[in-house]
Amino acid sequence: MKIIVLKFGGTSVGTIKRINNISKIIVSYLKKRFKVIVVTSAMSGATNKLIKKSKQISDKFNDSEYDVLVSSGEQISCSLIAAKLSHLGYKSKSYLGWQVPIITDNAHKSAKIISIGKKVLINYLRQDGVPIVAGFQGISLDGRITTLGRGASDYTAIMISKYFKAKKCIIYTDVEGVMTTDPRIYRKAKKIKEISYEEMLEMSSLGSKVMQSNSVQDARLSRVNIDVRSSLIKSKGTLIKKKKNVRQNNVIRGISSTTNDAKVTLVGVKDKPGVAASIFEPLSTNNINVDMVVQNISPNKVDTDVTFTVKKDDLNKTKKLTKNNKRIKFRKLLIDDKVSKVSIIGVGMITTPGVTYRMFKALSKKNINILVISTSEIKISVLVSRTKLRKAVSALHKEFKLD
Amino acid sequence: MKIIVLKFGGTSVGTIKRINNISKIIVSYLKKRFKVIVVTSAMSGATNKLIKKSKQISDKFNDSEYDVLVSSGEQISCSLIAAKLSHLGYKSKSYLGWQVPIITDNAHKSAKIISIGKKVLINYLRQDGVPIVAGFQGISLDGRITTLGRGASDYTAIMISKYFKAKKCIIYTDVEGVMTTDPRIYRKAKKIKEISYEEMLEMSSLGSKVMQSNSVQDARLSRVNIDVRSSLIKSKGTLIKKKKNVRQNNVIRGISSTTNDAKVTLVGVKDKPGVAASIFEPLSTNNINVDMVVQNISPNKVDTDVTFTVKKDDLNKTKKLTKNNKRIKFRKLLIDDKVSKVSIIGVGMITTPGVTYRMFKALSKKNINILVISTSEIKISVLVSRTKLRKAVSALHKEFKLD
Repeated sequence: MKIIVLKFGGTSVGTIKRINNISKIIVSYLKKRFKVIVVTSAMSGATNKLIKKSKQISDKFNDSEYDVLVSSGEQISCSLIAAKLSHLGYKSKSYLGWQVPIITDNAHKSAKIISIGKKVLINYLRQDGVPIVAGFQGISLDGRITTLGRGASDYTAIMISKYFKAKKCIIYTDVEGVMTTDPRIYRKAKKIKEISYEEMLEMSSLGSKVMQSNSVQDARLSRVNIDVRSSLIKSKGTLIKKKKNVRQNNVIRGISSTTNDAKVTLVGVKDKPGVAASIFEPLSTNNINVDMVVQNISPNKVDTDVTFTVKKDDLNKTKKLTKNNKRIKFRKLLIDDKVSKVSIIGVGMITTPGVTYRMFKALSKKNINILVISTSEIKISVLVSRTKLRKAVSALHKEFKLD
Repeated sequence: MKIIVLKFGGTSVGTIKRINNISKIIVSYLKKRFKVIVVTSAMSGATNKLIKKSKQISDKFNDSEYDVLVSSGEQISCSLIAAKLSHLGYKSKSYLGWQVPIITDNAHKSAKIISIGKKVLINYLRQDGVPIVAGFQGISLDGRITTLGRGASDYTAIMISKYFKAKKCIIYTDVEGVMTTDPRIYRKAKKIKEISYEEMLEMSSLGSKVMQSNSVQDARLSRVNIDVRSSLIKSKGTLIKKKKNVRQNNVIRGISSTTNDAKVTLVGVKDKPGVAASIFEPLSTNNINVDMVVQNISPNKVDTDVTFTVKKDDLNKTKKLTKNNKRIKFRKLLIDDKVSKVSIIGVGMITTPGVTYRMFKALSKKNINILVISTSEIKISVLVSRTKLRKAVSALHKEFKLD
């Protein structure tokens, strides 16, 4: 069977008009003789309304009942789509999590899929039916409704694609695909045609509006090729697939940037073995994520400066914990929360030498000072002053021919 | 086990505040050591909103998907109640139709209950849990969600009461109980303390705001005693039970009246065997319900006058069908749509002679002309001019000491 999975997000099914519109998309694949499995989110706004109700009942709303409550959102959207297809003369039926069944653990509100029953849907596909599967929900082994965490309809679509060995998994959303950089920061940003899972994960700051990074990771682990595109505009989207299958035109795939980082510098730290661990231990136990770290070479071989970045939200907590840290001694604590992290991302840099040099040169040409550097196999990040953000992104976008 | 079934209608769970309020009612029964099974409707207005959506999708919305769509309403209300009870420290869980399970036939939109599984709920009651059962929904033998028809949460509550041999079934609604007559027509109407199923069925015109007549019939057949009361005001309601268990203070239990009847008279009908059948046959095949019928004695023994009533909505169709009826001959067709049917109802009239006489005398004293009469074992109905409606109800209410 030539199975294709079409997943529609909340905005794609947000109004009756849009449901009519996506029904046409579904029909276009049926006409191409695909066996179509549809996965749908709730109509946009529906889940938020239900969550609001839950908060009015209790600030500690029972997790299991929360799942019963919010899963009603997808129940509505999938019945509307199935009825629309029926109206158009196609055989279609809604399938809720328990009807497929999509078996999960019982970690309510963020359950993981254990297995998906294939018999019911395969049977229906054989009869030329179009199953409309409610995303985001499943059933636990003790027969209770579970949900997979917010935005997890993508997860449902990816797992359905995996279990049913779908030829394609198309994620329809309200954006056209993944962009080379945030168009609000650099207006010449372009849509990326193909990207590897790994690059997509590194671009999470860009990609978050497209797909949540845990869904990308699910796709990577399940080896499901994703096609992200808009349900509102007819145009090719972005293909997310295995590294070796991605066509490589440019060394760099995209540029991501942040505006919610803060830089912390401890000046004159006594340099002795284990001092870094002593600095970061209290932050780690308090769930503060330390991102970039650099330790300067101390001129006198006794003192050293340690610089790191944390999210701005964690800044006050970080200051307090560091000042109260009895295991370290330092002269001064410097804070800079007017910084941005700019990253270039691309699997091409593994095999192409000189990328770091080109990056630094492009920035220095524009008189942009690099405050901290960190690198991974497919990413180079630099911390720059917030005021230089647009200039830095624009310079790098041009340097790596993304325009 | 001392099981009690508490059913809450749409207005009783219409807002978060009201859900908080009914949670207190539930707790009051738990404190009296009852094992409580709650049955709930959707929050008032919720079902109508969903139906509106279905109509926007298609004027022939698929019946099976309609059931998936509208059953989401009870899913929301029962999860909110269960979570509220959890918040208050009680063990509570929502149970949807398929989870109980409530097995139905597959007549979507108006399914009938075939059986109710007892194991799951009994088990939960034994653990001191409070199951909150979604009313109005079930699951068909082929695993699809079904609904039991509008207002059928009462039906769910009655069948649950029957299967679990509940000591009591209390239907909480937004009225205080069943009244002796419509308070808008006669403001001295009183609440009825006890009423038999049969009387309640005859009072359907009064009772419709309280319980639908098919639910009363379900209760009668299942021998479930019903207690109808308000969830908004603390006061005793009306008990609906077996004829022989109803206390009999008055001969007459209540007075019902209609304003949507019309009287049709065929003047000068050729009187021959089978003429009545010829008159009513086309009406019956066109689903027109003929209510009261009277055939006057013809003075010349050749012609006769036939009078009957139909619902005003059916009047035009009735006129057309009768005029086109080739099997009968008549001189004139008279129409009067300014009529009301006033009925006195009470099981007491079976054993008390002279009720008819008292009724007619009370009306004649007030110069109210009786147009048509019809009687059943526990009901006497008269057709009067619409302008005399209030006067007739008031006279009868006094005559039979219902004030």
